[in-house]
Amino acid sequence: MAKQFDVVVIGAGPGGYIAAIRAAQLGMSVACIDAWSTADGKPAPGGTCTNVGCIPSKALLQSSEHYEQAATHFSEHGIEVKGLGLKLDTLIGRKDSVVKQNNEGILYLFKKNKVTFFHGTGSFVAQVDGGWSIKVSGTSDEDLVAKHVVVATGSSPRALPGLPFDEKKILSNDGALRIPAVPKKLGVIGAGVIGLELGSVWRRLGAEVTILEAMPDFLAVADQQVSKEALKAFNKQGLKIQTGVKIGEVKATAKTVTVPYTDASGAEQSLAVDHLIVSIGRVPHTEGLGVETVGLKLDERGFVVVDDDCRTNLTNVWAVGDVVRGPMLAHKAEEEGVAVAEHIAGQHGHVNYAVIPSVIYTSPEIAWVGRSEQQLKTAGVEYKAGSFPFLANGRARALGDTTGFVKVLADAKTDEVLGVHIVGPMASELISEAVTIMEFRGAAEDIARICHAHPTLSEAMKEAALAVDKRTLNF
Amino acid sequence: MAKQFDVVVIGAGPGGYIAAIRAAQLGMSVACIDAWSTADGKPAPGGTCTNVGCIPSKALLQSSEHYEQAATHFSEHGIEVKGLGLKLDTLIGRKDSVVKQNNEGILYLFKKNKVTFFHGTGSFVAQVDGGWSIKVSGTSDEDLVAKHVVVATGSSPRALPGLPFDEKKILSNDGALRIPAVPKKLGVIGAGVIGLELGSVWRRLGAEVTILEAMPDFLAVADQQVSKEALKAFNKQGLKIQTGVKIGEVKATAKTVTVPYTDASGAEQSLAVDHLIVSIGRVPHTEGLGVETVGLKLDERGFVVVDDDCRTNLTNVWAVGDVVRGPMLAHKAEEEGVAVAEHIAGQHGHVNYAVIPSVIYTSPEIAWVGRSEQQLKTAGVEYKAGSFPFLANGRARALGDTTGFVKVLADAKTDEVLGVHIVGPMASELISEAVTIMEFRGAAEDIARICHAHPTLSEAMKEAALAVDKRTLNF
Repeated sequence: MAKQFDVVVIGAGPGGYIAAIRAAQLGMSVACIDAWSTADGKPAPGGTCTNVGCIPSKALLQSSEHYEQAATHFSEHGIEVKGLGLKLDTLIGRKDSVVKQNNEGILYLFKKNKVTFFHGTGSFVAQVDGGWSIKVSGTSDEDLVAKHVVVATGSSPRALPGLPFDEKKILSNDGALRIPAVPKKLGVIGAGVIGLELGSVWRRLGAEVTILEAMPDFLAVADQQVSKEALKAFNKQGLKIQTGVKIGEVKATAKTVTVPYTDASGAEQSLAVDHLIVSIGRVPHTEGLGVETVGLKLDERGFVVVDDDCRTNLTNVWAVGDVVRGPMLAHKAEEEGVAVAEHIAGQHGHVNYAVIPSVIYTSPEIAWVGRSEQQLKTAGVEYKAGSFPFLANGRARALGDTTGFVKVLADAKTDEVLGVHIVGPMASELISEAVTIMEFRGAAEDIARICHAHPTLSEAMKEAALAVDKRTLNF
Repeated sequence: MAKQFDVVVIGAGPGGYIAAIRAAQLGMSVACIDAWSTADGKPAPGGTCTNVGCIPSKALLQSSEHYEQAATHFSEHGIEVKGLGLKLDTLIGRKDSVVKQNNEGILYLFKKNKVTFFHGTGSFVAQVDGGWSIKVSGTSDEDLVAKHVVVATGSSPRALPGLPFDEKKILSNDGALRIPAVPKKLGVIGAGVIGLELGSVWRRLGAEVTILEAMPDFLAVADQQVSKEALKAFNKQGLKIQTGVKIGEVKATAKTVTVPYTDASGAEQSLAVDHLIVSIGRVPHTEGLGVETVGLKLDERGFVVVDDDCRTNLTNVWAVGDVVRGPMLAHKAEEEGVAVAEHIAGQHGHVNYAVIPSVIYTSPEIAWVGRSEQQLKTAGVEYKAGSFPFLANGRARALGDTTGFVKVLADAKTDEVLGVHIVGPMASELISEAVTIMEFRGAAEDIARICHAHPTLSEAMKEAALAVDKRTLNF
């Protein structure tokens, strides 16, 4: 007989596992189904984020950052290193153990919160009396009935047409995390978050990295002043980035990948590399979900169609995270997961999509929240801008990392903060103050009046807010 | 003839130089007097903070952190280092160049803001027609008349009775920043911010460091749960800390410093070290200011007596920073400097003393704002506490630094955040979000509902806020 649950969540990525835990906290009986496996076939909940995304990439970024510090900056500090070497196995192994800690952490959380976990693929079978019939196939083989279903099946990397990922020569974000030896030459197609982060990792470890981007502007998603500053820094580090290129037919042999392309000036070029990372975007993942069986509505790009509260077209079926509209960000998925669980419990969950931060974990880091200058201009919003460079920040000088700036954008009349854009050290952590200010609909003057500890990088936020009123104290 | 100014600021530390710049921004004619000199006799504005405090200590902490990472953690990352060496001259030289950048930065800011700088000691001469007569003696030799005077003369390290600082064997924060060779054994009297930060620097560089503290509780100024966690971490690192000791008569020879003391159990002990840092507090610095000449009122401990708006007993004489009541913190001094300048300009400057963050730049870092559990208990305030360990934070795992936690204290009835206490990676930067929340008088529920980027350390703040309501998602 089918097992009955109040809520069945399909997918244990950040959207799914959080929805499951929150629903269980609110007193519901909850199951969560996930098919990710470790190399030895055990469950590996956490989705793309934990297994082949945010977490492992940050582990590699940290290790490679140490390596680069040792290789290029230690001498400034008077630290002498003779014979700097790299055991790539250990470096990758550490990353794997960080991933494992997170996998196990989620399994522990399921136990603690009494969420029943099923290891396998979850599919819709039919609408039945009492909700939805869901089949689990895989390690677990179960029939479930759920009053509510939360679809949190995530996304998959998009391949180039005719060039499937073999994860040996042609790499998605997955294979790019476990290249067995530091390549001499590494190509990256797509200068988005994933391309930049993974390109940075391998460049730091010694690869010659070339990133090809089809868009004419570098990092068009970010504030353009930030993008320019970041590009300058990346070029200085030796990351070769070409924008406005048109990729031809890629050829991969056992030894080399050849990427013919037309550069921005219209000239024919060819890039020969040992491996090619293809990071040209991600597509919603609904394969095997049984979408057609129950008539779950997808949009023309394959996303599950949802309303503002993540309701699909089917009664008591919800969807969150990468598989629905909005930015493909773990924390956006988490917020939706919480909101949906609270809606199911009769509460008033809510996601403020206007105040979701974005982060790129390169060096310098890039982070922003709210609107960019170009977005404000397009929308015809009158605004004031204030910037402060880390070059004038005492902590940044002490750290030896003075690249970048903080920029605060505020409404010209009300002074309300409309956007904050950071490129520089620890941008990922500094952005939380900006998100907080924006959630309170605070003004630039508020940031400027709040005491910031000295010496901290966050003082740059205060100074950028002072700059909005043209009264920086330290620049 | 005496030069006339609307405002003369005595002292160019964080309180003084900021007051001078803000006053100049508000349209006043401003002079700033400061006696600090570089080794070759040039002006070195910035006070204790820039010259022998916050800035150089952070430069050394960063360098020594790199050294320790290489010595003890690189192998986990697969980074092999053969023959790790230290050129202490270069390390100290880098610190000096960071200090110099800051000195020069302030001189540049004075020029840019049209603040007239005088290199020398400023003293009150008399109340005169049009304000106060101020004499500058030193490189500059000038008579000034100021409508308003801002006293920002800072503080000096307190010596042990009968044991003056020679900065060779008996070191204040100054000499502790430039020990010519890594000592084999280093003693520190006083386990406050300075003792812990500088003790950490030299321990990381290879010294055997013993810290003796008179108070029975370690770091009584911080939340006791934080202090306990920090002590555990420091002990693990090999920092020897003894509390509840009574120091006897210290004897210094050219070779050794001997510190006899009675330990907490009452047993007589003796510590022999190469150098001894004495960091038992700081005293307000008013020497040479001419306090008695004009009758500037000091309290029994030597602080200039001021009201809530930093007004002294003398008309149009103000005082800010370490020389007045309140915590001896650069950012507190800065806030007072801005407020005083705005008061002089007829505006309504204000410092919210309840929301001034404190930071200790050890590893793990320690930072807090608002009240501790012990303070709330003493005050009889009913509160709820929520904690989240970095051990359960994905970014901390990726960084390889999972020591510590974030704790949020909120009013039991209103949920208003009353204090936030952090011990762990980047606590110094994470605290800015907490300060912002408290300035808006936000609730723990507000932090819990705000989207935090993943994977970041700041997610630990959100989870600690969720813990206040017993609904952590990741622990």
